[in-house]
Amino acid sequence: MTHSIIFDTDPGVDDAQAIAIALRHPEIELLGMTTTYGNVDVEVATKNALLLAQLAGRGEVPVAQGAAAPMVKARHAPPAHIHGANGLGDIALPEVQGKADPRSAAQFIVDTVNARPGEVTLVAVGPVGNLAAALQLDPGIIDRVKGVVIMGGSIREGGNVTPVAEANMFNDPDAASRVLTAGWPLTLVGLDVTHRCVLTPAHMARIEAGQGELGKVLAGSYAFYRDFYHEFLGIDGCCPHDSCALAWLLRPELFTTARGHLTVATEGDAEGQTIFAPEGRGFIEARWSRTPVVEVCLKVDGEAVSDWIADVLA
Amino acid sequence: MTHSIIFDTDPGVDDAQAIAIALRHPEIELLGMTTTYGNVDVEVATKNALLLAQLAGRGEVPVAQGAAAPMVKARHAPPAHIHGANGLGDIALPEVQGKADPRSAAQFIVDTVNARPGEVTLVAVGPVGNLAAALQLDPGIIDRVKGVVIMGGSIREGGNVTPVAEANMFNDPDAASRVLTAGWPLTLVGLDVTHRCVLTPAHMARIEAGQGELGKVLAGSYAFYRDFYHEFLGIDGCCPHDSCALAWLLRPELFTTARGHLTVATEGDAEGQTIFAPEGRGFIEARWSRTPVVEVCLKVDGEAVSDWIADVLA
Repeated sequence: MTHSIIFDTDPGVDDAQAIAIALRHPEIELLGMTTTYGNVDVEVATKNALLLAQLAGRGEVPVAQGAAAPMVKARHAPPAHIHGANGLGDIALPEVQGKADPRSAAQFIVDTVNARPGEVTLVAVGPVGNLAAALQLDPGIIDRVKGVVIMGGSIREGGNVTPVAEANMFNDPDAASRVLTAGWPLTLVGLDVTHRCVLTPAHMARIEAGQGELGKVLAGSYAFYRDFYHEFLGIDGCCPHDSCALAWLLRPELFTTARGHLTVATEGDAEGQTIFAPEGRGFIEARWSRTPVVEVCLKVDGEAVSDWIADVLA
Repeated sequence: MTHSIIFDTDPGVDDAQAIAIALRHPEIELLGMTTTYGNVDVEVATKNALLLAQLAGRGEVPVAQGAAAPMVKARHAPPAHIHGANGLGDIALPEVQGKADPRSAAQFIVDTVNARPGEVTLVAVGPVGNLAAALQLDPGIIDRVKGVVIMGGSIREGGNVTPVAEANMFNDPDAASRVLTAGWPLTLVGLDVTHRCVLTPAHMARIEAGQGELGKVLAGSYAFYRDFYHEFLGIDGCCPHDSCALAWLLRPELFTTARGHLTVATEGDAEGQTIFAPEGRGFIEARWSRTPVVEVCLKVDGEAVSDWIADVLA
């Protein structure tokens, strides 16, 4: 089965790996990339998306630029210590040839979904402001997408940028609240599974060997990202957060999921937390169980996912 | 080593088991019980505390009545479907002979701690309004208690009354925030460990046989509480939440703990959540790491704790 996807992204080192998968995998039809601030400024994200497509020989893939900042709140500074100031580990990068689509990311999403109702899956791996903006332009896409896969949030794992919040959700909790409770068929691929996957130097050597000029960029940026993981988490390797969203799409049998209701805290000490109420479970008040039912990933065969990523790109 | 404790409680079926341990265990000097609303109204809690002491032949133990409602927020209704309207599974109860201490719970705590500086441990297993009120009367007790053990909260386990909040913390998040961040030597014994302990009917048969008239009340109320666990959680047995606080005090080697900072969410969808920032872990802002360092329980040998409870009371 081929998945026709729009990949919403803020590349970003782990985004770059996921983009490479989206560009290369025979069962993915990449209809376009939409870009957002997050790991980097949105202009850098757009440039990197164009560059990665070009290096993969896929310069025809549209790239539409979107949100430069959150919907409501002030923006947090991009984490240059994790992804580098250029989003790709501060390695020297080739010149970008292509240009972005003239439409906004949100308009591109609306146009593309409406052109092929029931066929398009949105895969978002950064702050989800572009999806929220698309819902503002045309809420009717809720009934016309095939599915929505979000890399973000955390159910039981705790957070990465706060004790309870994952970075993408924390970077725009208002957009996250809109997108995660919109009532479309949605799966949350959060830290509960991405923290179980470790892409090792051995995996990366295979990817570098298999991807030509693109492989050099993936491997070079990975080396920078790996330093962060080594220093902060004490592991030799990186969590391939964003690739996990594609692994869920193509290899769902590797994941354990649950159905239930999500609430995103938009204020206070829990800001950005994804609060999960399992379907059918009663609580002291009904409010947490009133949002539409979605699917969340709870467990994963992390080794199998990491091997799958390397196999796809080797 | 003997532990001189004040037991702050809202009995409550699992409170009653813990009170029986506090009254019986040779290494516990029970200086008094202080009562609060929570599982029941405070007047019922006081009556039950007096009755349990009387049935154990310990009518001399002072019982001081405290909070009838939260510090700031409106009160939630007592969970009569869990503990019964009388707090002890709606079984017929003997007449109460004793009378409560004339002092408020908070004054009793202040007087008792100040009379024996460095010697008294506060063990609180209900909403913690009495401890907050004691801190309001005399913040100096922060430096004069030996320790504070709180049954409440949740680190990774999720909540029981909301998706993220445990009942005691949810019932008075403002008091919880005051007490958990006061800067005294505190251990949080929360759902991460109490949900791993199951007191089975076999355990309870031993307790019933070992405790005479008190055993009949413990076993009768347990039967009611067990129905709730069977219906809602699908287990045959009960989580002895409150006894876990005493198990931590007397058998700490059965627990795995971590040190870090707690923040209690007092507003919004995460209200009552205990947000834990491990010591030394950096987050995007410093705010979660500014509260005093405490100890939280993360894991437990649940079978050993349940066996310990039955052994103490058999």
